[in-house]
Amino acid sequence: MQLHPDRLFPADTAVRDIARHLHASIEHLPIISPHGHVDATLLANNTPFPDPTALLISPDHYVTRLLHANRIPLDHLRVGGTTTVTPEETWRTLCANWHLFDGTASGYWLTHELITVFGITDTPNAANADDIYTTITTVINTPQFRPRALMDTFTIEVLATTDDPLDTLEAHDTLANDPTFTPRVIPTFRPDAYTKFWHPTFPELATRLIDEAGDGHTGYDGYLNAIAARRHYFREHGAVSSDHGTHTPATLRLDRDEAARLFTKGINRTATRDEAYAFEAHMLYQQALMSLDDQLVMTLHPGVHRNTHRTTLNTYGPDTGHDIPFAVDYATNLAPLLNAVGTHPDFQLILFTIDETTYSREIAPLAGFYPSIYIGAPWWFLDAPDAMARFRAATTETAGFSRSAGFIDDTRAFCSIPARHDAARRTDAAYLARLVAEHRITETRAHEIIVDLVDAAPRRAFTL
Amino acid sequence: MQLHPDRLFPADTAVRDIARHLHASIEHLPIISPHGHVDATLLANNTPFPDPTALLISPDHYVTRLLHANRIPLDHLRVGGTTTVTPEETWRTLCANWHLFDGTASGYWLTHELITVFGITDTPNAANADDIYTTITTVINTPQFRPRALMDTFTIEVLATTDDPLDTLEAHDTLANDPTFTPRVIPTFRPDAYTKFWHPTFPELATRLIDEAGDGHTGYDGYLNAIAARRHYFREHGAVSSDHGTHTPATLRLDRDEAARLFTKGINRTATRDEAYAFEAHMLYQQALMSLDDQLVMTLHPGVHRNTHRTTLNTYGPDTGHDIPFAVDYATNLAPLLNAVGTHPDFQLILFTIDETTYSREIAPLAGFYPSIYIGAPWWFLDAPDAMARFRAATTETAGFSRSAGFIDDTRAFCSIPARHDAARRTDAAYLARLVAEHRITETRAHEIIVDLVDAAPRRAFTL
Amino acid sequence: MQLHPDRLFPADTAVRDIARHLHASIEHLPIISPHGHVDATLLANNTPFPDPTALLISPDHYVTRLLHANRIPLDHLRVGGTTTVTPEETWRTLCANWHLFDGTASGYWLTHELITVFGITDTPNAANADDIYTTITTVINTPQFRPRALMDTFTIEVLATTDDPLDTLEAHDTLANDPTFTPRVIPTFRPDAYTKFWHPTFPELATRLIDEAGDGHTGYDGYLNAIAARRHYFREHGAVSSDHGTHTPATLRLDRDEAARLFTKGINRTATRDEAYAFEAHMLYQQALMSLDDQLVMTLHPGVHRNTHRTTLNTYGPDTGHDIPFAVDYATNLAPLLNAVGTHPDFQLILFTIDETTYSREIAPLAGFYPSIYIGAPWWFLDAPDAMARFRAATTETAGFSRSAGFIDDTRAFCSIPARHDAARRTDAAYLARLVAEHRITETRAHEIIVDLVDAAPRRAFTL
Repeated sequence: MQLHPDRLFPADTAVRDIARHLHASIEHLPIISPHGHVDATLLANNTPFPDPTALLISPDHYVTRLLHANRIPLDHLRVGGTTTVTPEETWRTLCANWHLFDGTASGYWLTHELITVFGITDTPNAANADDIYTTITTVINTPQFRPRALMDTFTIEVLATTDDPLDTLEAHDTLANDPTFTPRVIPTFRPDAYTKFWHPTFPELATRLIDEAGDGHTGYDGYLNAIAARRHYFREHGAVSSDHGTHTPATLRLDRDEAARLFTKGINRTATRDEAYAFEAHMLYQQALMSLDDQLVMTLHPGVHRNTHRTTLNTYGPDTGHDIPFAVDYATNLAPLLNAVGTHPDFQLILFTIDETTYSREIAPLAGFYPSIYIGAPWWFLDAPDAMARFRAATTETAGFSRSAGFIDDTRAFCSIPARHDAARRTDAAYLARLVAEHRITETRAHEIIVDLVDAAPRRAFTL
Repeated sequence: MQLHPDRLFPADTAVRDIARHLHASIEHLPIISPHGHVDATLLANNTPFPDPTALLISPDHYVTRLLHANRIPLDHLRVGGTTTVTPEETWRTLCANWHLFDGTASGYWLTHELITVFGITDTPNAANADDIYTTITTVINTPQFRPRALMDTFTIEVLATTDDPLDTLEAHDTLANDPTFTPRVIPTFRPDAYTKFWHPTFPELATRLIDEAGDGHTGYDGYLNAIAARRHYFREHGAVSSDHGTHTPATLRLDRDEAARLFTKGINRTATRDEAYAFEAHMLYQQALMSLDDQLVMTLHPGVHRNTHRTTLNTYGPDTGHDIPFAVDYATNLAPLLNAVGTHPDFQLILFTIDETTYSREIAPLAGFYPSIYIGAPWWFLDAPDAMARFRAATTETAGFSRSAGFIDDTRAFCSIPARHDAARRTDAAYLARLVAEHRITETRAHEIIVDLVDAAPRRAFTL
Repeated sequence: MQLHPDRLFPADTAVRDIARHLHASIEHLPIISPHGHVDATLLANNTPFPDPTALLISPDHYVTRLLHANRIPLDHLRVGGTTTVTPEETWRTLCANWHLFDGTASGYWLTHELITVFGITDTPNAANADDIYTTITTVINTPQFRPRALMDTFTIEVLATTDDPLDTLEAHDTLANDPTFTPRVIPTFRPDAYTKFWHPTFPELATRLIDEAGDGHTGYDGYLNAIAARRHYFREHGAVSSDHGTHTPATLRLDRDEAARLFTKGINRTATRDEAYAFEAHMLYQQALMSLDDQLVMTLHPGVHRNTHRTTLNTYGPDTGHDIPFAVDYATNLAPLLNAVGTHPDFQLILFTIDETTYSREIAPLAGFYPSIYIGAPWWFLDAPDAMARFRAATTETAGFSRSAGFIDDTRAFCSIPARHDAARRTDAAYLARLVAEHRITETRAHEIIVDLVDAAPRRAFTL
């Protein structure tokens, strides 16, 4: 297998030629990764990566889900800490089923990682699985493959992690205070578990939050103050954004007494589903207000049924591949928030979607008027070449390029970061090349735009 | 008019060349048609086809609807048994309006049939209509055009029909027991009329079902047992699947007493609309459970307002062109069923949609985790080249090719079967050729994949 | 900057060549503009256009919204009559931010206008803004740039305006009675403000309508008769259509007493939101019935949250860029109307959408059966090259070309009319060229089809 220099570019030779030139402008620009799920302690401790399976398969629900769909049980993939089979056996399973990933985004990333990071060019299969396992193991144990060294190899300039509100952010501090480590590793405030009554440990988490971060008040008032305090703490430790994986994009302004009443029901596990949704919507609204003070950019990732298969959740835990999107309405849901702060100079909101119907219908129209709204990159199931091309076509004609927040990789798979940015940059080069070939923009402007998308756009949207 | 050898292939010469090679691999593979609406008695009796109008126009709502939209009354098309005009006159109407079908899927199929089956190369018009009518009539009356002979000419290896639960399946038995007839003609269990309280004759049908197929119990218990018995009967007579044209994909587990209470209301015509939907959802769930026992693959075709124009329904009957799709939510609706049997090794469910927004948002994510779920081919209004290209682009990046159920023609127009498979095969060749040209898969793998899609995929999904 | 002769054509040289030939057939055909928002008094009085800013920026919410999204306050754009800055300063703001419009439909239109109407070829920027302002000012003040002269220059054969039901249509009469003015300028009946209880001045408007146009009856009966009378008045003064920007496409037949009860609540400002929607749906239904008598084609533009940002509405007025679309269901909502008049020979309904998911799912299937329904051109945010290409691909395979209503520019920006028709014609040429190159239609038929789309289709759909 190989990475063809023209991969993901259009087949037409004239357009491809333009795409090549555009891509050459940005191919070697540093990676800015303003939203993702890498663990900062990995970098702080600079511990070697574990075995190939623990590195590339078990924690990656993009990979395990498609194997599972082909009737390979999750415990055979060592998901959720299971050890029914050895890492070597799991690795063999992936290699024997490599063909399942043909045409998928995951297949692109895995191939890119094997070739560029580990120097493997044989297409994995059952016969060469053990050899590849050995090769990767050897690479993993070299000093050049330690996490901090890879930050340099991958030319990652900024890497945002996603963190629990009560995280001490010690790992981030360690990195920030280390003069020998130049990349910027910044935390992201992710309060979801503390705003969803249906979270398995919401009462415990909320109570702990009040105890540890509150100002002495109890109940809802203490809770609200504690959220604000922790947001400030994150800001002081380098955070530029808060991330919200709400059920829907609903926003709602409850009065203090009603919010307090719901909060008590949430703590007592007596809230109805509608009350839980109302409280989540209220807290999204409240945090938009807080952001005027602490300047954290708000990123929103709604529209997913989480953990749809209860047996799998109970056996293997969350994030094991059975989250499924649903249709979302941004315009109606965001109205209360946008009326409050949509044109405020200090508010920024990046909208992500996995319901791509919203791109032309709601997200581009919203971002084409409200100065606070930026258009997030195609997320999760849409982080793939054809989906990204549809995204650009669906948003640009209404909102241009200036409202784009640039690319985010959103990944916990550290070694896939370069692969994901590579796919996004190539897809944008292909899209812009088409506009040039169709005489819709000049090639000079296309060069400026693609540099902006890779470099300035994420800095602007995330206030980096 | 002609069938260009490069039809439906991309214009770019490099991509077209790849598409040609891919298509050559599968052009002559036998047709597997695991879901459709041809009548088995047609083959069992091997009766000659009727006149050109009765063969190609009156029963085909794809054709009559677009003529009707252009203000040609349905009785002028001899729809629903009307005989206001002669077959020759109706044929002239089609030919005079041939241009209306330019760019449509129906136009492609009709052209393909006229050229390949009847040897007609003049584009139909008012002037040559009578000559074409005569030519077709002559062909129809040749022995080579008898239905059984056409099965060979068309190289149909498997043909599934769609049948009433109380059908004796005598025609299927006749064909299965005839050593001179080699294709496999198999029934499909279609219980819709027996699970929808709003069906005009639901009480009569359900009562007859209990009387003829029950185990002596009355009411709901007898009904449920009769459904199970008939499913077994179908399985014993060759069926591999049951087909469900439910209103939505709702699934629901009612307890026995609640289900029985609703059933009684259905029989008495006193059920509300919500009760009717609940019972339908319950029966979909029940039959998923039954399938663990009888191994019938479940196919689901929801999301259509049937017979939206009451006057047309009353005058011409159902299936006369005024069924209109609506937006559907698969993820939420299927949750009860998927939690019950979604990962069961003996359950298979093929999802069809005419709401194409669900491909990237719900169907590919579902099929990319649940081993029971296969992605059905674009159905009905989406069974067309551009729509099929959108379908592949929307599903492959998430779910690859292994979760595809292959193509189904879903047609009652026997002579259009080769045309429909031809369009699907060419569209897949075009899509795969693009992936090859963009260096996303190798040409070798593309060859393997296209053979798999035509041959192994339907066998896998339908357990053929 | 330049207008490349191949702009918006596909990059592939073979396809581009076909597109060029197709476009050449229709490039110089007169413009038929059967729906738009130009003011008839502009033509009747033939007054010179105002300054460049008042002509091209302030009234055009497509332009001001994207500048506003980039943090330029609306008063700096002289929106809503504000005069914080001079027209020259506002013009400089546009030129300095010209790059924001790269890749957008508005950018295409503005560029086309500057080049073809004003002869400007320098790409606007901060440095040349004043020179361009001077050039445009000079052109504006020439006799050749008077509105009536531009009608000739632009080769506009038919121009429909959109008018208040109580408009005297004096300007239209002036034009119709002027033998030296040959283009046809026709009014369109737009009753929205008179059917929406939530309109700020509904009670006053409805009362005035009854007083001025009623037959002496008071309340609902007088109101209904006044609507019918004004529709007839419009028809007598040249109108061919009525335009309905309803919230949803809901249609509903209330009995007379229920409608009268709701009307009274509307007048008294005591109606609930649901009652207001019900009355609007009832009036849409009523006007469909009226159209059987007065023969006004009905055009429907639903699915927009109007004026989503209240502060902006209060400060700058409506139509200032913050209308946002939402998901719409046509099939369910239109059922009552379609059952009443959907197949009536005297009824015509053109459906517009900004929820593009409805094209393949609902609008093409509806127009492919109901002879009354025509498919409206992509509207507003979808009036852009890629969106128009998606529209053709989503509707043609089901409904062919005969159900298309042709292009409408829907604009209040008079000078952008040629630009908009140019983009639409080129996009259709590109689409048809692809079908030809893929051997799906012949080039001869493509020529006939593109002429039909530009010329006969709007005449057919709008009964011109």
